[in-house]
Amino acid sequence: MPNIIVITGASSGFGALAARALARAGHTVYASMRETEGRNAPQVKEVEKYAAAHEVDLRAIELDVLSQQSCDAAIQEIITRHGRLDVLIHNAGHMVFGPAEAFTPEQLAALYDINVLSTQRVNRAALPQLRRQGRGLVVWVSSSSSAGGTPPYLAPYFAAKAGMDALAVVYARELTRWGIETSIIVPGAFTGGTNHFAHAGAPADQARAAEYEAGPYAGFADQVRKGFAAIVPPDADVSVVADAIVKVIDTPFGKRPFRVHIDPTQDGAEVVNAVSDRVRAEFLRRIGLDDLLTPRALATRSQSEN
Amino acid sequence: MPNIIVITGASSGFGALAARALARAGHTVYASMRETEGRNAPQVKEVEKYAAAHEVDLRAIELDVLSQQSCDAAIQEIITRHGRLDVLIHNAGHMVFGPAEAFTPEQLAALYDINVLSTQRVNRAALPQLRRQGRGLVVWVSSSSSAGGTPPYLAPYFAAKAGMDALAVVYARELTRWGIETSIIVPGAFTGGTNHFAHAGAPADQARAAEYEAGPYAGFADQVRKGFAAIVPPDADVSVVADAIVKVIDTPFGKRPFRVHIDPTQDGAEVVNAVSDRVRAEFLRRIGLDDLLTPRALATRSQSEN
Repeated sequence: MPNIIVITGASSGFGALAARALARAGHTVYASMRETEGRNAPQVKEVEKYAAAHEVDLRAIELDVLSQQSCDAAIQEIITRHGRLDVLIHNAGHMVFGPAEAFTPEQLAALYDINVLSTQRVNRAALPQLRRQGRGLVVWVSSSSSAGGTPPYLAPYFAAKAGMDALAVVYARELTRWGIETSIIVPGAFTGGTNHFAHAGAPADQARAAEYEAGPYAGFADQVRKGFAAIVPPDADVSVVADAIVKVIDTPFGKRPFRVHIDPTQDGAEVVNAVSDRVRAEFLRRIGLDDLLTPRALATRSQSEN
Repeated sequence: MPNIIVITGASSGFGALAARALARAGHTVYASMRETEGRNAPQVKEVEKYAAAHEVDLRAIELDVLSQQSCDAAIQEIITRHGRLDVLIHNAGHMVFGPAEAFTPEQLAALYDINVLSTQRVNRAALPQLRRQGRGLVVWVSSSSSAGGTPPYLAPYFAAKAGMDALAVVYARELTRWGIETSIIVPGAFTGGTNHFAHAGAPADQARAAEYEAGPYAGFADQVRKGFAAIVPPDADVSVVADAIVKVIDTPFGKRPFRVHIDPTQDGAEVVNAVSDRVRAEFLRRIGLDDLLTPRALATRSQSEN
């Protein structure tokens, strides 16, 4: 059965690719983005052209993850049209690059807003419907940085993504009893094929950044860029992330993987998360809450309990 | 040689204990807190009584981690008095308890502010002095939740602490070339001996929280509390965290541990962090940046290079 899916940050990068791949797989996909009548009007046209050319059910929808009102309106529109919503994909995100000390607290707050509070707004808009259904899937596009090796100069972004990953892990356990499943997608660094690195924000305190450049970190930004160049294989194909998301969604309910790593750089996140996810599962068993590890089928449960 | 030390959130809990233990160890300790003339005036009196009774150099200082101006003023006052600042201890923090979905994005933002942006404000106030000195130590009081097993219903706090831990890891590498060392203290859950659990904030959206209580998560808050009760040993002594901080600071420069775990619950964070810290160190070696793993002694370096 085709799923009704909404994905955030679908104007470019992983989001645009995943939206198209999911539509090709036969799902009804809402490629959500902000400024559909402004900056992203060309992306909306691209979505429409793609849907027509491939005869798939792909639709752009206005959703600004920074606004609760916008999240509520978009989700409500989808639910009104279809009477249900099957899959949320938290993909919107933004990156910054530079010495940690040169970012203002306000910049760190803004990064947390776009990468983490964004997911909270969409969850608060959509989860009541998923809970009513007693069935659903939440997919989080995390980052290998939250567990694996990382170069410096990306601190505000890594802090936000680590926060997002932690939120995903806790939400997973608070949703299983409602019959809602969670999959966390963990991409490594893809320096090409997305705008993520190209559009990375700069520190607001340029004087502070200049102190690093005039001191022992002279030329460090280039060192980090060369470090990435050395580990991201030249043939790293960003579309494998989209393919992984399709595979997760097309896996039967209750059988979907808790995490999927797609990391051509092999930064070690897969090793660390294998340990941490296991340790966390053992912890729940230890305190008698191991039922939280698998999504409960509410409909089935109430039948068998009644 | 006694160190000049400032510790945030020192009105109670780990912070108050660590400030006293460090003063007893012979250091000059600024126990920083907000509202020294208001809500925390009694804590200031306690600090003064303690210093007099034990004949130690323990001083309360006004520092509101939510205000850059307040952070700047406190740090400046310390530097003006002593001409230096040796150790920063990021300890201020706050917890909330309840279903993730029932917290507003604004509550998540506020948690990030107190637990993470707080450290950024203090760093921006103090690091220029530490960098000028070419010597210093930054101690972060993280949380085992950022790597180990966790019960649900603490999502906004866990997300913030995971962000703080990620920030600490990146900062560590951006400070070593300045001759600044980093130690991350990782306490497990201490449900007694601090106000952390007792003062935990509640979700603002009580209607949403009530849906969880009326649904499959009925009684869940109690289940989580019982889970903690089952794993926190009755004799878990919160003062061991303070003792661990003293030990880190009294270890010679360049020899301090990157992480110290103090977790009577043994939630697995020590296992996960051993893997992640190793994987992250290997990553830096792989991209040719392994010099970032140890603090450089700037004075020595410039002598040998000139």
